[in-house]
This record gives sequence, structure tokens and C-alpha cells, in this order.
Amino acid sequence: MFKNILIIGFGMIGSSIARTVIKKNKSIKIFAFDKSPSLKIRINKSKLKRVKVFKSLNEIKDQNIDFIIICTPMLQYQSIFKKLNDIDLRQTIVTDVGSTKVNIEKIYIQKKYQFNFIPSHPIAGIEKAGLENGFDGLFTNRYNIICPLKKSSKTHINKVIKFWRSLNMKTEIMSSKEHDKVLSLTSHLPHLISYSLVLTAMKKDTSLNSKLVKFSAGGFRDFTRVAGSDPEMWRDIFLANSSQIQKLTNNFISELKEFSRNLNKGNSYNLLTKLKKTKNVRDKIIKARQAGKFIPND
Amino acid sequence: MFKNILIIGFGMIGSSIARTVIKKNKSIKIFAFDKSPSLKIRINKSKLKRVKVFKSLNEIKDQNIDFIIICTPMLQYQSIFKKLNDIDLRQTIVTDVGSTKVNIEKIYIQKKYQFNFIPSHPIAGIEKAGLENGFDGLFTNRYNIICPLKKSSKTHINKVIKFWRSLNMKTEIMSSKEHDKVLSLTSHLPHLISYSLVLTAMKKDTSLNSKLVKFSAGGFRDFTRVAGSDPEMWRDIFLANSSQIQKLTNNFISELKEFSRNLNKGNSYNLLTKLKKTKNVRDKIIKARQAGKFIPND
Repeated sequence: MFKNILIIGFGMIGSSIARTVIKKNKSIKIFAFDKSPSLKIRINKSKLKRVKVFKSLNEIKDQNIDFIIICTPMLQYQSIFKKLNDIDLRQTIVTDVGSTKVNIEKIYIQKKYQFNFIPSHPIAGIEKAGLENGFDGLFTNRYNIICPLKKSSKTHINKVIKFWRSLNMKTEIMSSKEHDKVLSLTSHLPHLISYSLVLTAMKKDTSLNSKLVKFSAGGFRDFTRVAGSDPEMWRDIFLANSSQIQKLTNNFISELKEFSRNLNKGNSYNLLTKLKKTKNVRDKIIKARQAGKFIPND
Repeated sequence: MFKNILIIGFGMIGSSIARTVIKKNKSIKIFAFDKSPSLKIRINKSKLKRVKVFKSLNEIKDQNIDFIIICTPMLQYQSIFKKLNDIDLRQTIVTDVGSTKVNIEKIYIQKKYQFNFIPSHPIAGIEKAGLENGFDGLFTNRYNIICPLKKSSKTHINKVIKFWRSLNMKTEIMSSKEHDKVLSLTSHLPHLISYSLVLTAMKKDTSLNSKLVKFSAGGFRDFTRVAGSDPEMWRDIFLANSSQIQKLTNNFISELKEFSRNLNKGNSYNLLTKLKKTKNVRDKIIKARQAGKFIPND
């Protein structure tokens, strides 16, 4: 297993990885590098004193870092990759947690970078950002999609798989292209829809605004949770997987129009058939233990 | 306060009312009337032995029922209203929990029914149906919209308000028309969208289906929760508030198209501005304690 892990970008995901590793294995050393000027204070306040803070990526060699996990917004990858490439990383494996994969693979290949890069994507998250919101257990039972490059060595891939499994994750191997296709459906479109619904509601008569909040328990609140996700992160995701998302949005609009037509015609039978179809999917998600748990009253 | 309460339609909502009343006030008697042939067995199994089962609505007079709460699907209201109207209910107040109000008011007025009817709508629910899924506390801190009719007496309205408040609900008075407008935004459109997204996803390459389930934690699962709601109930709601919902669906489609245009043009600034706007609404809902609580891992 890895002995010295560096987490670049120590936000909610980064700190959740650190917390889980700390709980699982006391002998692994964890280091963090982040733009936040108060990182050290925040880490100490969050009872993460075992995490040592890097002042620069040049410390990678001094500390014999054997595993690097990039957890920054994806727009920062270019400059991070560039810096990593200037360091001798033959003994190090690099992975990331980014939500799109085709764009990242492209950057890496076009620039002919040499470090050992095995992209991954843990499908786990909450809508709150910041290292203070991370927690041990975020990854339990969740899936991690690993998208090896053509030149990735089996040994390296297996090490990355083993690492994520040690955080209680399930792993799947996929091409970057397939990853982006699947995720456009299970994550990107749902987020785009949530943002759009909240915007639609806000555009309505502003006198509704307080009512919107008061009566949100009727369904609206579920969408605001997703739409409360980090805006910069999601702009990057939408732009990175733009064409897939546009295609799906069109399919979704067709579905909405068909629904509306059925309403307009008062077609009770068609409506019921549609509504009954969807229940099945929810049951499958619950069985696969991917549903999470919603408590209606806080 | 009421002494003898009859709940017509003893499902998730009905049983949650019973459970909460039982916990709050040991002296109130609760009766249930429902189509389910095994109602008595199910009630006893659910530790609700204090609830007595009516064989017919004719028992209303014998038991001095002073408060009736209709908790059935809305399509059953017509026949229930008809039966209630044949009974002398001068000493009884009738309310309901239906999710649309204009249609119900219309039925009552057109048929010139005489019983004391004060429609209400508790904005609380979970996606699971059936009396076994009800629980004490479902209504805590949630809002209840009461839509009195023109002829409703103040004394009766106040009694209904007092009842819902005794279940720890907050109450608001609204016209039926306003209710349906507000709810189309906070509940009906969100449900229509959830159903449509799940249908869109199901239409995609069926080989995706297991992936859809596995990777649903990226956002999709939140929609399946809402889309797992009772199909018959939601067909009735959609049809009852059809024109409001169609109007809103059009607004929502425009918003989606604008989003898609911004993606197509790669307009990063516009995208970010949009995404930032929505965060505010979530914060307000949390402050108003209407957010519920989501635990990402079950």
C-alpha cells in the first residue's frame, strides 16, 4: 500500500479522503497542498493535525510521496499537470477525482506528460464545499469509476483500485468516453435540471419567493439541494461534457413535451402508465444500496 | 378540541395523523374508514390498536364524530362527499389533505353540499405509501395550507387551524386558486420533472440500466425518490392542476433551452452567473427549517 499520500486541493472530497485513510490506517502519512492561505489553521481546527501542509509541490521528492490525488476544480488541472511534469515522479502514481474524464485525458495526452496518471472518479459527494464539511464514511459503499489510459500499467491500475477499495468503495473500470456518457445521465443532466428548475421558480412573481421557501417540502426542496452544489465546479463540468449534455437535454425536453401533451388531452391512461414505469428504478437503487437516506424533518 | 375523529382513507398520511394525535392527546378517540379489506389486521400489526375501524360511514352518528379528515386519493372525493351529504353533519367539521384545491372546491359548490367543509393541505410526505409507513412526527414544523370556502364560519376555521397546530404544524390561509398556483411551482412541476427525467434515462440504451443504478449517487437518485411517489395520486394531481402545470412546464423548457444555448456557445460567464443565483434559495430553505436532512450513505 501507499506510504505517503499527497492530496492536492484539500476541500470537502480531499478532507473526506484524509479522514477515511486516517481512520483505516494509522501508518500512512498524509500531506495536503491547497491555495487556501489559512489551510494549516483550518486543518488543525478540524482535528486533522496528522495532515501535514505542503508550501510548494517541490516538497514531493523530500517526502517520498508515492501517491498523489488531485482534488481541485478541473480548471486547475492544466497548471498542476505542468508542475508535476517538472518533478521526477517515476516512483509516484497520480490520480484525480474529477467529474468528467475525456477532457482530462486529452490534456494529458496532448501535452505528452510522463507521470503515471490513472484518472478516477469517486461517485460520492454532498452539496457542501470546504474541508470542514468532509467526513469519514463519505465513500462507504459508493462506486469509483477508474479510467486508465492506454499506457497505464496493470500494477499501477491495481494499486489505485486497491486504494479506493480500502476506503470501502466499489470500483469499475471504464473508458473516459463511456464514463462521460454514463455520468451525463446520472449526474450532469440531473444537476442542469435542478439549476434550471430553481431559476424558473425564481423568475416567477417575486412575491412567491417566501412561499417558495415555506412550501418547498412538497418536492422543490430536493432540487435545491442539488442546485446548492459548488457553482465553479459545475460550470467546469457542464462545459467539459457540453455536447453529451446538450444531446440529453433535448431528449429530456421531448419527454416533457409529451407529458404536457398528455395533460392537455387529459389522457389519464397514458399518464398513469408513465408514472408507474418509474417506480421500478427507485426500487433497484434502494436494493443496490445507492439511495442514501432522506429524513423529511430535520 | 375535537373528541371523536374519523380518518377516511387510512394510508401513510392518515396513519401519521393518527399516530401523532395518539401521542399528543390520550383522550381523543380515533376511528378509521378505508377500502382495504385487511384494515383491522394491518392497524393492529402497526401498534395502532387504539384506532377503531368503521365498517360503514353510517357509524358517524353513533360515535358522535365531530371531525372528519379525508385522506383518500382525490378521485374518491365525489363518492365520499355524496355519502357525507346524506348524513346529518351539523355538529361535525370536515377537512381533507388533498394536494389540489380548486377542483375540490368546485365539486363541493356545484353539488351544493351542506356539510361544514374546510379544505386543508399539509405539505408533508414521503414517497412511501401505506399505513405501515406513516409515523408520528411527519408533520413537525411543516406548513399546512388551509383554503376556507366563502361560507366557512370563523369558528370552524379556527378549530381546524388549532387541530393542525396541535400536530406541530404551521398554518397559512390561502384561496384555492392561490394554493394551486403556489403548489404547481413547489410540488407539481418538481414531480413532473422527476418522472420525466427517470423516463428519459430509461429510454436510453438499456445496457445503461444497471449503470444508471450503480452511479445514481451522482444526482440521479434524488429524482428517483420523488418519482417513486404513488402513481395514482400523482396522476390525479397532474390532471386536477393541468393548465397551471402546462404553463410552468413551458417556462421550464425555455430555461433549459437557454442553458443549452449557453453551453453551445461555451459562455462560461453566463453559466456561472446562473449557477450562483440558485445557491441563495437553498440557504433560505435551510434557515426556514424546511430542508429535511439527507444522509448520503444509508
